[in-house]
Amino acid sequence: MGKQKKFVEAITAMDVDFAQWYTDIVKKAELVDYSSVKGCMIIRPYGYAIWENIQKYLDEKFKETGHENVYMPMFIPESLLQKEKDHVEGFAPEVAWVTHGGNEELAERLCVRPTSETLFCDHYAKIIQSYNDLPKKYNQWCSVVRWEKTTRPFLRTTEFLWQEGHTAHATAEESQQETIDMLNVYANFCENALAIPVVKGQKTEKEKFAGAKATYTIESLMHDGKALQSGTSHNFGDNFSKAFNIQYNDKNSQLQYVHQTSWGMTTRLIGAIIMVHGDDSGLKLPPRIAPTQVMIVPIAQHKEGVIEKAQELKTRISKVARVGIDISDKMPGWKFNEYEMKGIPVRLEVGPKDIENNQVVLVRRDTREKLVVSMDELEIAIPKLLEDIQNSMYEHALKHREENTYSAATLDEFKEIADTKSGFIKAMWCGDKACEEKLKEVAGVTSRCIPFEQEEISDKCICCGGEAKQMVYWGKAY
Amino acid sequence: MGKQKKFVEAITAMDVDFAQWYTDIVKKAELVDYSSVKGCMIIRPYGYAIWENIQKYLDEKFKETGHENVYMPMFIPESLLQKEKDHVEGFAPEVAWVTHGGNEELAERLCVRPTSETLFCDHYAKIIQSYNDLPKKYNQWCSVVRWEKTTRPFLRTTEFLWQEGHTAHATAEESQQETIDMLNVYANFCENALAIPVVKGQKTEKEKFAGAKATYTIESLMHDGKALQSGTSHNFGDNFSKAFNIQYNDKNSQLQYVHQTSWGMTTRLIGAIIMVHGDDSGLKLPPRIAPTQVMIVPIAQHKEGVIEKAQELKTRISKVARVGIDISDKMPGWKFNEYEMKGIPVRLEVGPKDIENNQVVLVRRDTREKLVVSMDELEIAIPKLLEDIQNSMYEHALKHREENTYSAATLDEFKEIADTKSGFIKAMWCGDKACEEKLKEVAGVTSRCIPFEQEEISDKCICCGGEAKQMVYWGKAY
Repeated sequence: MGKQKKFVEAITAMDVDFAQWYTDIVKKAELVDYSSVKGCMIIRPYGYAIWENIQKYLDEKFKETGHENVYMPMFIPESLLQKEKDHVEGFAPEVAWVTHGGNEELAERLCVRPTSETLFCDHYAKIIQSYNDLPKKYNQWCSVVRWEKTTRPFLRTTEFLWQEGHTAHATAEESQQETIDMLNVYANFCENALAIPVVKGQKTEKEKFAGAKATYTIESLMHDGKALQSGTSHNFGDNFSKAFNIQYNDKNSQLQYVHQTSWGMTTRLIGAIIMVHGDDSGLKLPPRIAPTQVMIVPIAQHKEGVIEKAQELKTRISKVARVGIDISDKMPGWKFNEYEMKGIPVRLEVGPKDIENNQVVLVRRDTREKLVVSMDELEIAIPKLLEDIQNSMYEHALKHREENTYSAATLDEFKEIADTKSGFIKAMWCGDKACEEKLKEVAGVTSRCIPFEQEEISDKCICCGGEAKQMVYWGKAY
Repeated sequence: MGKQKKFVEAITAMDVDFAQWYTDIVKKAELVDYSSVKGCMIIRPYGYAIWENIQKYLDEKFKETGHENVYMPMFIPESLLQKEKDHVEGFAPEVAWVTHGGNEELAERLCVRPTSETLFCDHYAKIIQSYNDLPKKYNQWCSVVRWEKTTRPFLRTTEFLWQEGHTAHATAEESQQETIDMLNVYANFCENALAIPVVKGQKTEKEKFAGAKATYTIESLMHDGKALQSGTSHNFGDNFSKAFNIQYNDKNSQLQYVHQTSWGMTTRLIGAIIMVHGDDSGLKLPPRIAPTQVMIVPIAQHKEGVIEKAQELKTRISKVARVGIDISDKMPGWKFNEYEMKGIPVRLEVGPKDIENNQVVLVRRDTREKLVVSMDELEIAIPKLLEDIQNSMYEHALKHREENTYSAATLDEFKEIADTKSGFIKAMWCGDKACEEKLKEVAGVTSRCIPFEQEEISDKCICCGGEAKQMVYWGKAY
């Protein structure tokens, strides 16, 4: 009667080897497979379904806020990439070059887009003439390529999927507003859909995007205490519009340069979901982003009426949640493990006794709590339970971040925390790049962001003792 | 008060210069812009919104029929591309090669995917072990690159967007069934959503896909009488599984090769929409695929209550159709031209007199017919009108195809038609490649397909006079 698939093998425990635990999950939960191209991943159906839900949520928000989708070429001529000086310096060392088309060598080599500022600018220079043409608020969903030396699925890959928003505005105020608005869209998405709390703030000069006037970021904390930059939004001011000559006639027929932004989120968010919520049994998906929210596992399914009842429940539940059913001939224990590994928020068990008692058993993936619920109440109980799980996953992640966020008032304290703990360290900074570099050298941390919510821990820079300008989040990062 | 945009300039008439008419529409309707990379296009918001509707419709059908989306790398190592002999011969001459990553030359050059059979096969060889793992029915949405010498927006570009389905099955029967099922999905999509009638059939040996056992196609007829291959579905049999060693254990624990298919549809469909439905005023979009189905243009909008009423109508109509409103200070005449150019199926005019009479004027884009409709009936009248337009556009296109489909029983007749008419020519064929090549030489046509619906025009091959095996559609093609 066919081969029975073997039980899901146990994965490496998180505390034993976090990196291996991560790799085990992406493989065992069938999110990703390695490809024959170094550093490029294959996103498998389950991983891609999560990405589709991320896309759907964000795309709706982008459209609600007046953005339109477009598609730019994947190639950038070398001369175009070189137009903005800081930008090319930042990206040229890590791009892939196309040198031949068919059997012929190209007159000018083309880079595979690492990001598309230069293409959008080239287009904007053509289509923007008057203040009537502004603002332009475009976005594109695509893949980009950065030639990375060391790679990890979702977190850092040679090719990755993302969206990149590119906008052009009449004034500096508008582009600043857009930059912050989109950062807020990202922050709300992480907190509401992914149940991942974030710190919103500005990147230092050292850490900002190549070519930007200011870069804003949302930073989240992984289970191992390392930070993950989860989305960035850049204000370019007129840096690019001067390089690409993007000008418009204002209401007084004066030529003005436009002010621009760009902002992006990538498949690395799936890495964040894994590392914020996962445990030693596998993935844990927040209900709002889970491809399947409820998995029905019939118990003693060979008994009369069990499969029929389970299917009837599926039909009912499909009206209020994304529901699946597994009536394969695998053992229930195998199924439990499999769907825990895949992080499905709720398992619904139904067997002959449950049917007799007009009830089902609901098992939460996040807390493993079991609830016995009357069959009559499923349409109300399940959405409520999913909502509870979503909120409780957020609270759990927030608690973890709070417990792993430290304050340091002196350099010794700072080094002590960096050496013995892992998490965010809040400390004051004078604004000098030399201090930022020194902290990296002596404590192995980088500045994560200058948070919007400032605290005054002391009035002195943690590093040089000079006058403190800002409180900064520091940490080790992916 | 600011610069008034000038009237939409007239486009070249279709009968004067069809190619220029086409180019004018893609530019003036703001579907596409040219980029700084030769042969690559920028798909602008309006063009991309049409593509999003195409994606949405097809993606739903793919999922309904049990397919899952994945994402494969955009690069293929040269050695992997070379595994299936016919396939590499077909594609190698037209691929773009990446030779450098960052500042280093790659040990093995990578081609930018022209299609992803080789990547899917490489993955399937790893993940398929047993008959329990079959079928695998994957699809991906992405862009591909083919180094074309002459290009035209949508119809033939160096990079284009598409979906590519790749499936693996236990038996030859199943892969044949899948190939035909997906061809039918494509045919239904073209006819129902795009209002484009298609001829379903098989490609000849000469015209089939590189590496396939059989290629099936849907062929449509453009306004100028040229054919457009609008979607293809390939049965690979075990050609690829033998080259890539994709085997599974059957129920008797015997190793078997899988049987595979692939099928794809591209952004060239947008070219088909333009060339099947458009006229000298611009684009005409079938309602089911139109980003905006109804555009409200207030008349004498400076008069009290007009804009308010128009906005009230928009809110009501938004519940039954995709509706827009233009309350800019441009002249109504400018707006009429603009939305005709953009092919919006219905224009709704509402002015002071209409308000007085509790009515609006609906203008069909396809026939220019005007209908006066009571405001109370909009929620019923508009969906009905959109439905009428959809059907009537299909009927119109079908009539055009029928009027431009000819039968030839002798070679002289065939040449006469090819010389003086433009459209499909139905004629008998012996199955010999030499005859196919000769018809191209003497009449400038290629075989479009061997249609599923056969007719017996004569019992002799149109070319050599030998025994006829099949009736074939011939034509000039894009």
